[in-house]
Amino acid sequence: MNDLHRTCKWGTGKRWGSLDTETGMSRLSLSDSDKKARDWFVETTMALGCSVTIDEMGNVFAIRPGRNVGPPTCVGSHLDTQPSGGRYDGILGVLAGVEMLRILNERDARTHFPVGVVNWTNEEGARFPISMVSSGVWAGEVPVETAHGLREVRGGTVTMRSELERIGYLGSVPASHTSMPMAAHFELHIEQGPILENHKQKIGIVTGVQAYRWYTVQLTGRDAHTGTTPFDARADAMLAACRMIACSHDLAAKHSALASTGILTLTPGSVNTIPGQVKFSLDIRATSDATLETLEAELKAEFSRLASKDVTKGLDVSVTWQTDTISPAVDFHPSCIETVRASALSVTGDTSLFREMVSGAGHDSVYTSRHCPTSMIFVPCRNGVSHNPEEFAKAEDCATGADVLMQSVLRFDHL
Amino acid sequence: MNDLHRTCKWGTGKRWGSLDTETGMSRLSLSDSDKKARDWFVETTMALGCSVTIDEMGNVFAIRPGRNVGPPTCVGSHLDTQPSGGRYDGILGVLAGVEMLRILNERDARTHFPVGVVNWTNEEGARFPISMVSSGVWAGEVPVETAHGLREVRGGTVTMRSELERIGYLGSVPASHTSMPMAAHFELHIEQGPILENHKQKIGIVTGVQAYRWYTVQLTGRDAHTGTTPFDARADAMLAACRMIACSHDLAAKHSALASTGILTLTPGSVNTIPGQVKFSLDIRATSDATLETLEAELKAEFSRLASKDVTKGLDVSVTWQTDTISPAVDFHPSCIETVRASALSVTGDTSLFREMVSGAGHDSVYTSRHCPTSMIFVPCRNGVSHNPEEFAKAEDCATGADVLMQSVLRFDHL
Ligand SMILES: NC(=O)NCCC(=O)O
Ligand SMILES: NC(=O)NCCC(=O)O
Repeated sequence: MNDLHRTCKWGTGKRWGSLDTETGMSRLSLSDSDKKARDWFVETTMALGCSVTIDEMGNVFAIRPGRNVGPPTCVGSHLDTQPSGGRYDGILGVLAGVEMLRILNERDARTHFPVGVVNWTNEEGARFPISMVSSGVWAGEVPVETAHGLREVRGGTVTMRSELERIGYLGSVPASHTSMPMAAHFELHIEQGPILENHKQKIGIVTGVQAYRWYTVQLTGRDAHTGTTPFDARADAMLAACRMIACSHDLAAKHSALASTGILTLTPGSVNTIPGQVKFSLDIRATSDATLETLEAELKAEFSRLASKDVTKGLDVSVTWQTDTISPAVDFHPSCIETVRASALSVTGDTSLFREMVSGAGHDSVYTSRHCPTSMIFVPCRNGVSHNPEEFAKAEDCATGADVLMQSVLRFDHL
Repeated sequence: MNDLHRTCKWGTGKRWGSLDTETGMSRLSLSDSDKKARDWFVETTMALGCSVTIDEMGNVFAIRPGRNVGPPTCVGSHLDTQPSGGRYDGILGVLAGVEMLRILNERDARTHFPVGVVNWTNEEGARFPISMVSSGVWAGEVPVETAHGLREVRGGTVTMRSELERIGYLGSVPASHTSMPMAAHFELHIEQGPILENHKQKIGIVTGVQAYRWYTVQLTGRDAHTGTTPFDARADAMLAACRMIACSHDLAAKHSALASTGILTLTPGSVNTIPGQVKFSLDIRATSDATLETLEAELKAEFSRLASKDVTKGLDVSVTWQTDTISPAVDFHPSCIETVRASALSVTGDTSLFREMVSGAGHDSVYTSRHCPTSMIFVPCRNGVSHNPEEFAKAEDCATGADVLMQSVLRFDHL
C-alpha cells in the first residue's frame, strides 16, 4: 500500500478528502506522469532481480527466473488511469505483482518456472480510444499499425506511436504472444461494481467478462438560428442525439444490457445556433455476444428512424456509425478459475467470503485468455464506484486480494 | 455590396462555394478581426464627414450633422458574427448605413437634424453570452458592470472589459441613452427565417420582436464505470440532460413556442465513464411573455422530475438553473412602422411585395425601442437560413432593403 500511494504522486488527480492519500488519479497513458510510473516499475523490478523486456507497444514484462527455463506464469494489469479516475483501478494489480516479487525474494523462494509481472499499455482506452489495445496487439487481435496510428480521443495529431517514442517506451521486441509467451495470466483488480460489497464478501473469482462494443455516432443536420427557424424547418443534430441517447438506454434496459454515452461534442457551439454537427460515443455491454448483436441491430434501426423526418417533423438528419472496439464475451480457463478458488479458500478459510462472478469491465485478461490460461481476482471497492476520484478499496481487502493472487501464481507454477 | 464583401476579409469563415464571396464569417465580438472591421468603419465614416463617438461598451456612433442641432435619427446594427455565421446578419445593416451616408454626400443632401450609423458591440451574444448586451447597457437595462464582467462562453479569464481595452475600443463616454440620445433607430436585417421567401416578398415591416430567455442548466450526477455500474446505481447526468432537452422540445411545441440547445459540455469526457457533470444552454422563445413564463415554469417542474430517482430509476441527479438573458416581447413604435410602410410602398410600388411581421430573433432595436421610436426592415434570405456559413441574400434584395432604410430615415427626419 505504501508503494501504491507513493507512486500515485505521478498523476495525482482531484482531492476528495483531507488525508494525503485521499485524491483521485489522472494518469493518462503515455503521459509524462505515466512515464515516471513506468520508470519506477522498471527500476524496482530490476532491483528485485527481474529481467525487463519492453515491446513495441510499450508493454513492460518483468520476469523473475525459475528453476527451469520456460514461459513465465504472470500477473498483469495497468498503471494508466482515467482522466478523472482513482488509485486502485489497474494500479492495484501491478503493485500486488511487485509485492509478490518482493515476498518471493524475502523468502528466497524458487519457482519451477519463471514468474513475472506485466504492465500493459493504455488499458483504459481513455486517451487512445481502444481499451486494452496493447494486450490486444500481443494477442494478435489488434494490428500493430492500427494501435500505433491511434489518435487521442479529443483530436489532435499525436498518436500512440509518437507518444511511445516521445517517452522512450517504443521497444523493439514485437508485441506478440509468440515473442513473449506466458504460461498463464492472473489479474487482481477492484470489482468496480457493488456486488461483493453488497454481499459482504472479500474475493470475487472471476469466471469471465461480458461482451462490449464502442461506437462513435456522427450526426449531420444544419446550423440554423434558434429564434427564427420553425421546428418544421430544422435539422437539429443535438435534439436527434438526445433522442438517440435516451433510446439507447431504453433498448439496453429491455435486453438487461447496458448503454452509456461518455463523450459528446457539437459544432458550432453557440447559444443561439442549432448545432449542425454532433458526435457522441456509445458504449454497450451484455453478458452474451448474441444479445449485443441484437441490441446493435435494434439501435441502428431506431437511430435511423429518429433521424428521419417522420420523427424530426422537420428535415432529415444523417447518421453514420463507426465501430471503435469489439470485445466479445470471454470465459476464463477452468484450471485458472480452480486455482483462484483453492487460493481464496486457503486465504480466507470461509466459502461464504467469496463468490464466482462475471466482470462488467474489460481487462487485459480478456486478450491474454486467447493465448494462455487466464483468470482474475476481484476485491470489493466502496459503493462499487470506479472511474471516479473517490474510488476506494480498504488496505486489508487489497492485502487479501494480493495473497490470493500470489497463491494462485504459485499453485499454477506447481501445476 | 462591394464594401460588404471587402470588409468580410476580416474574419472570413468556412468556404461553401467556389466564388470569392462564397464563404461564411467567423468574426467574434472584440476579436482581432472585429477590431479591423471597426477600424474600417471609423475611418470610412469620418472620411464621409461624420463625427465618431465610442462609448464604454465599444458602441460606435458615426453622426452626420444636420441643419439643426439635436438627437440624430440613426440606423444601427452590428459587425460581429456567430463563430460559424454568414455575411449578412448584422453586417448588412451597418453597411447599408454607410451607403446611406455616401448617397447623402453624393446628393449633397442636408437633413433637418443629424443622422447617424451605429455599430453595437456583441449583438450576437455568441462570444459573451448576453445578446444585444451593449444596446442593453445603452438602454439602462443591463448594468455596465455586468456587461464588462462577462466572460467568454467557453470559459477562460478574458472579459468584455479586458477585450475592449485590448483592442482599443473601451471608450470614455458612458454607454447610455442620456449621453447618446437618438431621435429614432431603424435597423435593416435579413429575416433569418423563411416567411418572405415563401411568400415571394421583398420587404418585411417589422412590428415587434418575440420574447426569449437564455439559461444555463447544470446537472450533477456521479462519475462511474460504464461497464460495472448497473442502471439502478447510476446518477447519469448525460442521460438526464438528453431527456431534458427532448422534453424542452416537446413542451415548447405544445405551446407553439421554440426551445433549442446550442452548447453542451460534460466532464470527465471518457468513453467508459458515465459523466458526473453536464452543463447545457437552453434558449426558449414565444410571441408573448405570458407563454414564455408558463413554459419556463413547466420546464423547471419537468426537469426536476426527470432528475429525480422516480424517473432515473437510479440515484437523484441535481439540477440548477441560471438565467443568462431575459428579452421580453417588444412592440415597435407606430410612427416608425408607418414610416417603413410608406417607404416600402414608395420603393416597391406594390403592396403585395411587403408584409408586416414579428421578428423571431432579438436585435439591438429591442433595446433602442425602450428610449426612442424604433422599427426594423427585413429582407429575404435564401431558405431562411442564418447562423450558418451559407447564409445568403441577393444583392438586389439587399439594395431594395437599403433603399427602404434610407427613405425611412429621411421621412422620419422630416416628421
Ligand atoms: N477495468 C477497466 O476499467 N477497463 C477499461 C475497459 C472497460 O471499459 O471495460
Ligand atoms: N439577429 C440575431 O441573430 N440576434 C442575436 C440574438 C438572438 O439570438 O436572437
